[in-house]
Amino acid sequence: MQLEFLGTGAGSPSKQRNVASVALRLLEERNAIWLFDVGEATQHQILNTTIRPRKIEKIFITHLHGDHIFGLPGLLSSRSFQGGTEPLTIYGPVGIKRYVQTSLQVSESRLSYPLHFVEITDDGELFNDHGFRVIARRLDHKIACFGYRIEEADHPGELQVEKLREQKVPSGPIYGLLKAGKTVTLPDGRVLDGRDFIGTPQPGRIVAILGDTRQTKNAVLLAQNADVLVHESTFAKDETKMAHNYYHSTSKQAAEIAKKAGVKKLLLNHISARYTGKAAYQLAYQVRNIIPDTRVVNDFDVIDIPFKK
Amino acid sequence: MQLEFLGTGAGSPSKQRNVASVALRLLEERNAIWLFDVGEATQHQILNTTIRPRKIEKIFITHLHGDHIFGLPGLLSSRSFQGGTEPLTIYGPVGIKRYVQTSLQVSESRLSYPLHFVEITDDGELFNDHGFRVIARRLDHKIACFGYRIEEADHPGELQVEKLREQKVPSGPIYGLLKAGKTVTLPDGRVLDGRDFIGTPQPGRIVAILGDTRQTKNAVLLAQNADVLVHESTFAKDETKMAHNYYHSTSKQAAEIAKKAGVKKLLLNHISARYTGKAAYQLAYQVRNIIPDTRVVNDFDVIDIPFKK
Ligand SMILES: [Zn+2]
Ligand SMILES: [Zn+2]
Repeated sequence: MQLEFLGTGAGSPSKQRNVASVALRLLEERNAIWLFDVGEATQHQILNTTIRPRKIEKIFITHLHGDHIFGLPGLLSSRSFQGGTEPLTIYGPVGIKRYVQTSLQVSESRLSYPLHFVEITDDGELFNDHGFRVIARRLDHKIACFGYRIEEADHPGELQVEKLREQKVPSGPIYGLLKAGKTVTLPDGRVLDGRDFIGTPQPGRIVAILGDTRQTKNAVLLAQNADVLVHESTFAKDETKMAHNYYHSTSKQAAEIAKKAGVKKLLLNHISARYTGKAAYQLAYQVRNIIPDTRVVNDFDVIDIPFKK
Repeated sequence: MQLEFLGTGAGSPSKQRNVASVALRLLEERNAIWLFDVGEATQHQILNTTIRPRKIEKIFITHLHGDHIFGLPGLLSSRSFQGGTEPLTIYGPVGIKRYVQTSLQVSESRLSYPLHFVEITDDGELFNDHGFRVIARRLDHKIACFGYRIEEADHPGELQVEKLREQKVPSGPIYGLLKAGKTVTLPDGRVLDGRDFIGTPQPGRIVAILGDTRQTKNAVLLAQNADVLVHESTFAKDETKMAHNYYHSTSKQAAEIAKKAGVKKLLLNHISARYTGKAAYQLAYQVRNIIPDTRVVNDFDVIDIPFKK
């Protein structure tokens, strides 16, 4: 599981940063890529990565501002052009379906795969399948905007086969019963409790990817105990008033959310073109007293999300 | 007057070529840039040129396929974001207005300048102002597609002041009359014909920029005596059947159109990703027996269009 940042800028593309898009790479976990926002030229950015568009299974749109959606019609068309046949689902605020369908209709684009839409109107669980659960909650932006919490199911502990062999438990259907945590009586009369032969379960990973927002309580709920929080930082630490006026956050506000939620790693994106080079990194340095593991991400950064130790 | 190619590829973007867009630079002639087609990431390409979006006065769309229009909403938004206030007019087939307006509405983009639409339904003159006339004609593509002919008005001959001085004609209002081609009687009785003191007029330049098309008679009409013809060459010389099936042209068909129209310079664009490196240049080499001055254009090529000698 990795995050790959395809666009980390705000508003308009610049030479340094493209407009918004993040890929959540779930290739080992479910042989899929999920995208969060698809700003213009996201498909161009993908050309410079190992991502294959036909692996994109789900697209989550935080909100309908152009810098978050104008790359969708092109990406969908190219996925078809390249022979994608697997279904694709787009989640996002009301209006995303109309935008995509009008674009595809007017351009007479016929897709080679089924395209589904889920327009979000309320906070809650979007789905829960194949070991992943996604929850959306409304944020505080100028237009309807949702943040996403991705929860991986816990990986159950492995059956400790070595330990069973040491105790000379013959292999067979008994192993399955033990793995299921059952209590089993062996032919020789010994009684074994399955729970004694199962390793510790691996807690699933939690990632929160938010859209553009002012500081808001729902952000804390989405990020609760997350391994990684991706949070916008359109403004620097002290520009609280500007951030409020433009419905955005400062780096400090992002860090405060992370702190309240008990987040380990904070990744700041949606960086204004006003911050280049050192000035951009300052956004992170300024708040490391709040969350030590904070960084400003750049286009094409890949961040691994390991299991908790 | 120059052509600057922003995207010279076909269908989908590749690392070598972006999707369709050509800029006609009229900075000296009318302090304006005109764009022909706006594929996705045209605004990104523009970041690597000297073009300033607020100088874009008119946009001509050949047809509504995604690789020719998906960059429009982003470009229009960024032009606004950068403080453009001058009006902008978009010409194109019916549907272009719905596509752009839906995109801007859904994304709640409010533009800082007036945006006008002219949806083309018939062949004919689109406008004639400030020394330029543009004519559209329908081409033969899978969906409605128009080619454009841009005619610069002739520059009238200059008044030959040196010659008048040699003949000791006193300067004054007489010069204006002579420049207007009038016959004038001087105080000393000499009769002068203004036409004897006016240099040869400079014929205006003609550029034809076509969209995707099969070989068609209207292409010849659009390109008649053009200084430059920009013509698609999605297929190589011998792929006539493929070209027909996909509603496109071969390089040979493009050259035949240029030959019939008496065109001087042929620029081939809309190059398939199947042709890279030498294979792309072959598209031009193959047809230089028909039009010697033929070349395959690449992204960021700038082609000057000089006055006829
Ligand atoms: Zn944004
Ligand atoms: Zn095309």
